[in-house]
Amino acid sequence: MKSFIDIAPHSDFSIYNLPFGIFNDAQNDQKRVGVAIGEYVLDLCKVADLGYFDFLGFSEDWADSFAQPNLNEFMALGKSVTSRIRTEIQKLLLEHSELEQYQAEVLLPIHAVQLYLPIKIGNYTDFYSSQEHATNVGKLFRPDSPLMPNWKHLPVAYHGRASSIVVSGTNIVRPCGQVLPPNAELPVFSPSKNMDFELETAFVIGKNSELGSPIDISDTPDYIFGMMLFNDWSARDIQRWEYVPLGPFLGKNFGSTLSPWVVMLDALAPFRCQPPVQDQVVLPYLQCAEPFAYDIQLHAFLETENGSQTLLTQSNFKYLYWTMQQQLAHHTVNGCNVEVGDLLASGTISGGTPDSWGSLLELSLGGKTPITLTDGSQRTFLQDGDSIVLRGFCANNEMRVGFGEARGKLLPNNRQL
Amino acid sequence: MKSFIDIAPHSDFSIYNLPFGIFNDAQNDQKRVGVAIGEYVLDLCKVADLGYFDFLGFSEDWADSFAQPNLNEFMALGKSVTSRIRTEIQKLLLEHSELEQYQAEVLLPIHAVQLYLPIKIGNYTDFYSSQEHATNVGKLFRPDSPLMPNWKHLPVAYHGRASSIVVSGTNIVRPCGQVLPPNAELPVFSPSKNMDFELETAFVIGKNSELGSPIDISDTPDYIFGMMLFNDWSARDIQRWEYVPLGPFLGKNFGSTLSPWVVMLDALAPFRCQPPVQDQVVLPYLQCAEPFAYDIQLHAFLETENGSQTLLTQSNFKYLYWTMQQQLAHHTVNGCNVEVGDLLASGTISGGTPDSWGSLLELSLGGKTPITLTDGSQRTFLQDGDSIVLRGFCANNEMRVGFGEARGKLLPNNRQL
Repeated sequence: MKSFIDIAPHSDFSIYNLPFGIFNDAQNDQKRVGVAIGEYVLDLCKVADLGYFDFLGFSEDWADSFAQPNLNEFMALGKSVTSRIRTEIQKLLLEHSELEQYQAEVLLPIHAVQLYLPIKIGNYTDFYSSQEHATNVGKLFRPDSPLMPNWKHLPVAYHGRASSIVVSGTNIVRPCGQVLPPNAELPVFSPSKNMDFELETAFVIGKNSELGSPIDISDTPDYIFGMMLFNDWSARDIQRWEYVPLGPFLGKNFGSTLSPWVVMLDALAPFRCQPPVQDQVVLPYLQCAEPFAYDIQLHAFLETENGSQTLLTQSNFKYLYWTMQQQLAHHTVNGCNVEVGDLLASGTISGGTPDSWGSLLELSLGGKTPITLTDGSQRTFLQDGDSIVLRGFCANNEMRVGFGEARGKLLPNNRQL
Repeated sequence: MKSFIDIAPHSDFSIYNLPFGIFNDAQNDQKRVGVAIGEYVLDLCKVADLGYFDFLGFSEDWADSFAQPNLNEFMALGKSVTSRIRTEIQKLLLEHSELEQYQAEVLLPIHAVQLYLPIKIGNYTDFYSSQEHATNVGKLFRPDSPLMPNWKHLPVAYHGRASSIVVSGTNIVRPCGQVLPPNAELPVFSPSKNMDFELETAFVIGKNSELGSPIDISDTPDYIFGMMLFNDWSARDIQRWEYVPLGPFLGKNFGSTLSPWVVMLDALAPFRCQPPVQDQVVLPYLQCAEPFAYDIQLHAFLETENGSQTLLTQSNFKYLYWTMQQQLAHHTVNGCNVEVGDLLASGTISGGTPDSWGSLLELSLGGKTPITLTDGSQRTFLQDGDSIVLRGFCANNEMRVGFGEARGKLLPNNRQL
C-alpha cells in the first residue's frame, strides 16, 4: 500500500498503522479525534464534514464521536464499527484517492498540533506480568522468595491511580514522601532519592462488561481496543517503606506517562506471535486456544539536560509471561466489570539479559552499580532534569507500525521542608 | 428546630441532617438530586422551579446541578455554595414555611422512589486506619508482625476498584476465583468459601486539587463534601492467595456497597470529637492544629433469608487512629491529585472489644470460632442468602443525624465449574 502523502520509511505512522489520538491546533481549539499519518494528523471531523464517511451505515453518532475531547465515545461504537472506519481511512489515504485534493483542509502538520491524553481513563490496573522483572525485583526486596508462590498461577496485579496519568510531554515533579533511611529506625520526610522509570505498555478497554459476568478468555480480544506505551514512574524509597502489606501507593501515584496515539489491535495483527510457553499448567479459565503476543520492540532512552541521549534498554512486548487475554480474563473472573476507557498496564517489561531490563532498579542492581551514560556521567537513579523517552515499534520487511513516544522530564521538587 | 413535616424522633433524616442523594420515581424517570427528610424525599428541581432558591447569587448553574444523575456537579459548586443551599433547605422545611403549601408537589414518600449511587466515583482509595482492625487481621495473616513498622507513621492505603461500587440494595454475587486449600500445594478454582463484610465509612471529595500540589492538612476539610456508610465485601480465601506482594485485588473488587445518602460535614459538626491520642509522633505534614473525628455509632446486622436479624457488631467512627484530615494530606503529599467524586474509605472500623470488631474474619477469629445468630444458626463466614446491613447515626439529647443503611444480599454463584 502507498499513500498520496510522502511518508518516511522509518515513520512510526505508516499507512499500515493509523493510530487514533486527540488534538487541537491554533486555528481550532476544539479537542477532537485525529489519526497520525507520517508527519501529519488527519482531522476526522473535517473528513466527515466532506462526506467521505457517508458510506452505508455511517451515522450521526459516529461523526459526533470525532468531535469529542477523548476517544471514549469513538471506542464505544464497538470494534466492528471502529475497524471499519479505520479501513475506510486507509483507503482514503491511498494514492489516487479523491481525498488528496482536500489535503490542505484535512491534514495538519503533526508539529503544529497539541496532543492530549487520548482517553478519559476510568479505572487503571497495573499488572506484574514479566517473569524476568518480577524475579529481578523480588531478589532485591525479598531475597528469600523472589518469585512468590502465586506468581505462575495468576497474573498478579493491583489497582493504580487514574487521575495522575498524563500525556507524553508532561513534566513530572519529583515527589516528596516518607522514606526510611538505611539503618534508621524512624522515617524522614524528603524528596525521593530513588526516582525510577518503568518500561511498560498498556491496553485500553473499548467495550463494557457487566458486573457479575466474567469475560471468557476467548472473548477478551473483543474488549481490547488498542495499545500504548506507558511509563510507570516509581519512587523506590517511598515504595519500599509504604508497600507492606497493601501494595504500592504514593510511590507510584504521583504521575504516569501515556503515549498519545492509540494503536488498534488491527494494526498490530501482522506482528502477532506466540507468547512464552508457560511452564506451570494454569487453571482452565486462563487457558486459551489461541494465545497471542505481539512482536513490539521497546526502547527506553535517558536524555540529559545537556542534550545527550543514552539507550538504557531494549526490550520486547513478546517477553511477557502473561498475555493480555489472560490478564483480562483474570481481572473479571470474580465478576469485576470493565468499562470503556479502563486502562490495563503490563507491568515493567524486562527480558532475559541485562540490556533488556526495564527499570533503573534492575539496571543498577538496586542502586548499587551505576550506569554510565553517553556523556560520561553516571546514574543509579534519575537526576532532576533527566527525561525518559519510551519508544516502541513493530517492523518487518514490508511495513513498520510504531507507537511514537512516551516522554517525560523529571523536575526538581521545590517544596520548603 | 421543628419541621412542618412529621418526623419520627428516631428518624435518621431529621431537620438537622438533610443529606443529599439521587433518585427518580414512577412519574418522572429523570434521575435528580433530592434531600432526605423524615419519611420523604425533597425534590430540589421542583423547589428550584417554584423559585424558592431565587435568593441573592442563585444561578442557573446551581439549578442545573439538581437535574443531574449524580451529585458531582452539585458538589463541584463548592462548599460555600452547597452549605448555603443546605441552610436554605433547612429554613424552607421549618414549620410555618411558605413551602408547606406546596408539599404535595415537592415531597415524595421515600418508599416510592428509586435511589441510585449518589456519586460518579472517579478514583477510589481504601485506607486501613483502625489500629484494632489492623492488629486483629495482622495476627491472623502475619502472626510474627501483626502491626507493620510503617503503620503508626503513615495511614496505610491502597487503590481499589471504582466500577464495582454499587448502591445499597444491590445484590452481590459470591465471586469465583483461585484459592489455595489448606495444606495444598496448588490452587483450585472455586466460589469463595470465606465471604466477609467490612464495616467502613467513606468520604467523598468535593473539590479538585492540582497534580503536583499537595493539600496542606489544615486545608483538607475544604475538600471533604460528606460521608457515607461503606461495606467493603471481601473474599478472604481469594485475598489470602493473591495479595502478596502487591495487595488486595480480586478478593475485593467484585463489589462494594455504598449508602445512598451523602451526609455533609455541616450536619456532623455537632458530633465532632477528638480522635485517639497518637502514641507515635508523626511527621509535620501529618500534624494538625485541630484534629477531629465524629462520634458516629456504627452497627452491622446479619439478616438471614428466614428473616432473623442479628446485631453482629457495634463500633464507632471515632475509634479510628488516623483522621480524614491525615488521610487526605497523606494521599496528596507526593503531588497526587484528587478530583470531585473521588471516594476515600476508612478501612474496617473495629473497636477495642470483640463486640465492636468490624468483620467476620475478626469476629470468628479467622473462621475458627463460629458466631451464633438469633435464629440459632451459626456462621464463621457468610452463607448464600445472607444480607449485611450497615447502619450509622449520631445522636445526643437534642438531635439525631443518621446515614440510613448500606444493605446488600449475597447471592449464590451459579457458574458451571
